[in-house]
Amino acid sequence: MTAFERLLSAVGRLPGVGRRSAERIALRLVRDRDGLLSDLIAALVAAKEGLCGCSLCGSVTAVDRNPCRLCSDPSRDAGMLCVVEEPDDITLIERSGVFHGRYHALLGKISPMKGEGPGDLRLKSLVSRIEKEGCKEVLLALSTDVEGDTTAGFIQELLKGREIRVTRLAFGLPAGSGVRYSDPVTLGKAIQGRQQV
Amino acid sequence: MTAFERLLSAVGRLPGVGRRSAERIALRLVRDRDGLLSDLIAALVAAKEGLCGCSLCGSVTAVDRNPCRLCSDPSRDAGMLCVVEEPDDITLIERSGVFHGRYHALLGKISPMKGEGPGDLRLKSLVSRIEKEGCKEVLLALSTDVEGDTTAGFIQELLKGREIRVTRLAFGLPAGSGVRYSDPVTLGKAIQGRQQV
Repeated sequence: MTAFERLLSAVGRLPGVGRRSAERIALRLVRDRDGLLSDLIAALVAAKEGLCGCSLCGSVTAVDRNPCRLCSDPSRDAGMLCVVEEPDDITLIERSGVFHGRYHALLGKISPMKGEGPGDLRLKSLVSRIEKEGCKEVLLALSTDVEGDTTAGFIQELLKGREIRVTRLAFGLPAGSGVRYSDPVTLGKAIQGRQQV
Repeated sequence: MTAFERLLSAVGRLPGVGRRSAERIALRLVRDRDGLLSDLIAALVAAKEGLCGCSLCGSVTAVDRNPCRLCSDPSRDAGMLCVVEEPDDITLIERSGVFHGRYHALLGKISPMKGEGPGDLRLKSLVSRIEKEGCKEVLLALSTDVEGDTTAGFIQELLKGREIRVTRLAFGLPAGSGVRYSDPVTLGKAIQGRQQV
């Protein structure tokens, strides 16, 4: 494999980057070796050294700030835990300004089609967190598609018998969509109108 | 700027990667520090050390193989030069198996809207190549849009007075298509350029 093929292959493994995009990106990088390519290498090396997943919520944080800013903020309501699929969903919910609890990213959803089962999700840490932090309500901010519904059902089953209110975002979201496609107003309304499941 | 913001910013500068895609990519990279992130860093460092733009055609080549494989292939017809906008266009034309000459990538096209003029293109090296390599025909394989037309016109003007045939890719219906799938402009060009069967 040549250096260019190796570059193509690594770039092509990034999410959302297909074969043609990888080619465009790789060519641009080689063309701008001392600019973009150098900057990207420096940023990636700094990320590798300085960033990690938050041990609580699963989002990104600095290695010397773990748990992350949100998880260690004493002003956030520890009794309220919002479960999301991906860490970037957190940013979107934060922008709505309506939610003041804490977050937990599953890093996926149950999807038999993609071979992703409950074992691939951050569920054990979800349960241990709920016990440790004295959580009173779990708000499921999951996609309104089959995988999201399945995941919601699984978590509901998992938490059965505990004195916890399990809620889900109100169906202000259009079906077949998810947190990542919503604007802050819609998200805010969905949080306020959350319903017991 | 935190390491994550820096990562977001560097990734967001890649062509075709918007703000949301950059976020997804950055999160995936941090989540897979010892896999994808490490592999990408290694591939980028190898690319920075081992690759460069071909001094003749402008495509990518190994630093110890400059001019590139195509430009230094004695079996390719040096009298025929195909001018493309971007190096990845070369791959696509090569796949057709029809062209056996050499290539020259402009690395752009004349686009006043984007502030790109003739000075931003590899035109000087085009002219000096044509003189040096004894080129007989220049085939312009440029976009069929206003910028492509402008660029083609500029090159035609530039080569005026030389004994060189300047041609352009035929306009017409794409393969596997038909009248019902074509727009009026394409149809008009296909009628004007009709060929005897």
